[in-house]
Parts: sequence; C-alpha cells; structure tokens
Amino acid sequence: MSFENIKAIAFDADDTLWVNETFFRDAEVAFAKHLAAYGDQDEIVQKLLDTEIKNLDTYGYGIKGFTLSMLETAHRLMGKKMNAETIDFILNKGKQMLAEPVELLPHIEEVLGQLSKKYKLVVATKGDLLDQERKLIKSGLIDYFHHVEIVSDKKETQYKKLVKHLDIQPQEFLMIGNSLKSDVIPVLAMGGHAFHIPFHTTWSHEQVDEEINHSKFKALKSARELLDIL
Amino acid sequence: MSFENIKAIAFDADDTLWVNETFFRDAEVAFAKHLAAYGDQDEIVQKLLDTEIKNLDTYGYGIKGFTLSMLETAHRLMGKKMNAETIDFILNKGKQMLAEPVELLPHIEEVLGQLSKKYKLVVATKGDLLDQERKLIKSGLIDYFHHVEIVSDKKETQYKKLVKHLDIQPQEFLMIGNSLKSDVIPVLAMGGHAFHIPFHTTWSHEQVDEEINHSKFKALKSARELLDIL
Repeated sequence: MSFENIKAIAFDADDTLWVNETFFRDAEVAFAKHLAAYGDQDEIVQKLLDTEIKNLDTYGYGIKGFTLSMLETAHRLMGKKMNAETIDFILNKGKQMLAEPVELLPHIEEVLGQLSKKYKLVVATKGDLLDQERKLIKSGLIDYFHHVEIVSDKKETQYKKLVKHLDIQPQEFLMIGNSLKSDVIPVLAMGGHAFHIPFHTTWSHEQVDEEINHSKFKALKSARELLDIL
Repeated sequence: MSFENIKAIAFDADDTLWVNETFFRDAEVAFAKHLAAYGDQDEIVQKLLDTEIKNLDTYGYGIKGFTLSMLETAHRLMGKKMNAETIDFILNKGKQMLAEPVELLPHIEEVLGQLSKKYKLVVATKGDLLDQERKLIKSGLIDYFHHVEIVSDKKETQYKKLVKHLDIQPQEFLMIGNSLKSDVIPVLAMGGHAFHIPFHTTWSHEQVDEEINHSKFKALKSARELLDIL
C-alpha cells in the first residue's frame, strides 16, 4: 500500500499528541477517595462513568462536562449530605485539570516537524476548543498545524464534513489517533486512511474489541514510525 | 462604499441568528431568586458576573462554564450552608438552558436563503461547539452554511486566522454580529468589513461605548436590511 496520494493528515489531540486520559483517571481516583464514605473506589468510579455517559449528549467531551458530572455524581451519592467542602474539592479539581502542564508524547515534535514540510497538518479533536488551543500554544505545536478542527463527535458524518472542508477526497485524507472507535473505524468507513497509535490508557467508553484488517489501516507502536511510512 | 469584492460572510450565532442572551439573563434572575436569603437581586447578579469574568480564561464561553460559575458563586455566598437543593437547582438550570428550543431572530431564514446563493456563508462563534451545532441542526439553518468556525476568542488574531483559513483577503471578508466589541472592532482593525445588528440585550462584558465611523462598517436595525445592501 502506498500513501503517495495523501494530501492532508489530521491528528487527534488528547493521548495522541499529549497525555490526557491519565489526568482523568487520576481525577476519578481522587474523587473516589474524597467520597470513600459512600462506596469503594471501583463502585464510585463506575457511578461517575455512568453519569458521564448519560450526560455525553448534553455536555459533550472535555473537562467542564466532566466537572459537572462529578458534581452530579457526588450529589447522587451524598444526597442531603452534599456540602461546601465537596463542591470546593470538585470545582478545584476541574480547574486544576484545566491548568495541567502539557506533557507531549514521545517523538511528536520531531515527527510533526518533518511531516509539516510535506503535508497539510490539522488537529481534529472533540475536546474543548479553549483547552485544546491552550495546549497547542503552551506546547509550541501550534505552528506545525494549518488549523484546528473541533468536531462535536467523531462519526462518519463529521469526517465527511472535515474532508469536504479541506477540499480533498477521502482517499487523500489520513487520520492518526489513539482511539479505534473514534479515529479509525469511521475514517475507514468513509474511504480515508487511518493509523492507530495506542495510548496505554483508553477511556472505557472508547474501547472496542476488534481486529482491523484493511488496506488503508496501520497499527503503529509510536509516532516515530510515521517517518518510515510517510 | 460598494461591497462587490466580498467573497465570504461570517455570521455570529448567539443573538445574531437566534435568541441567547435572554436565557442567560433569565437564569441570572432565577439564580438570584433562589439565593434571595443572601442578598438582593442586583447584588447577587453582580457577584455571578464577577465570577464569570474571573473564570473566562479558564472556562471560556458557553453554558457549561456559566453553570460552573453559578456553583462557585453560590458556594461563595452560602459558605458552609451550601446544600444539595442548591446544587440540584443549578445543575438542572444548566441542563434546561442546554435544552432550550431555538428561537430564530426576525428574517434570518429568508436572508440566509438569499445570501447563500451568492456568498460563502460561515458561522463564527465563540460558544460551545456541541451547543451551537445542535441549534444549527434544530433550526434547520445548517444547510445555508459552508461550515462552523469555533473561535476561542474574537480578537484580531482569531479573525486573521479565519480569513487565512477561508483562503481570502481581509477586504473580501464581512462579519455580521450583535457585538461591537467582538464582531465589529477587531474585524475592522484587520481590514475586513463588519456590520452591526444590535440585539436588545447585550452582556455587560461585551458592551462598548463607542461611535464607529468607518467606510467598511454599517449599523443595521434588522437582518432584513442585508438584502438591500448585498
């Protein structure tokens, strides 16, 4: 399979360019510890996850929605005992997450530097724009990208729009990301290329149990391998 | 002044295409009433506004950040008395706002229908993408627009990026919106055209006391006038 016809490459942001899921997992554990009087850790984390998924259509992705879901879960668990201390803990946790320093994943800077000479690079993310732009600027990666595409979800429809917006054909598009469900499957479905670079932690809502065999698909261990292929 | 060289028109969304600010003003009043034991209405609304502005860099614009600011303000006012009922009230208020039906402003549909035949139309908004897309789809306006540009802020830098992204020159760009501060002044500064259509309510943080005299500027009373000019 050659990739000569690729004109634009879209990178997922969270857990593809930089560490993200780790902060959510850490926040879940801290949340469960704060509420230890109301259940064991796994139980509380599961309740928070249920709330997040229930609210996904309303809040979308990102730290603000996550913070609101922590508040709702605490309220459900604590009932009338919900108090100022817990509110404080949760609001501060959300603000801390929004202020986390950006930790780039291995080889990202080198790889983007090389690829940006040859391809139009964009960021395609369903996170919160302000938060993602802040990370791109803080990390210095912003200059490698033509622009940032915020998508409300990563389904086939949104990728079709993205490709139309880039004024290219689906087969000229390559998506790179850590989620098979969001970054790979819908892109292959619309006729684009997709490379998977797994991150060690994947949000359970994003997990799929599927082996992918497709001429336009590659599974990579690290971003470094992109330079051998493209 | 002729507008023959205009190639793309960007519309602000909230309070330009549809009613929005009214829901925030109503929510502020409901919030103040809920907290009536802690101060009079103006005082509480002002405290909420202070919190919103303090949090703007962290939360950005939109209903989720507003909900978190309501929680923070209530917490500050009530201290240890913060309780489950108030949490419930605020979380529900936020969700209600996210579920509000879309109320289009006068003539919008007719005007977009006409202009979309002649110009590339985009939406340029600093609101929450999920919320804005939902409104575009619910209202049926989505088909008139080439795409939606979510911008983290509406300063000269963001408009320069938008124009670059549209592959046009600043003087080929027209921005239409209800905020002089966000939709007009930065656009004129970078050499674009800007039309102001005021909405009866403007968030105090968006207000400017300024008379604008500029060859690329027009103040309109309603969107209907666009059809006489463009």
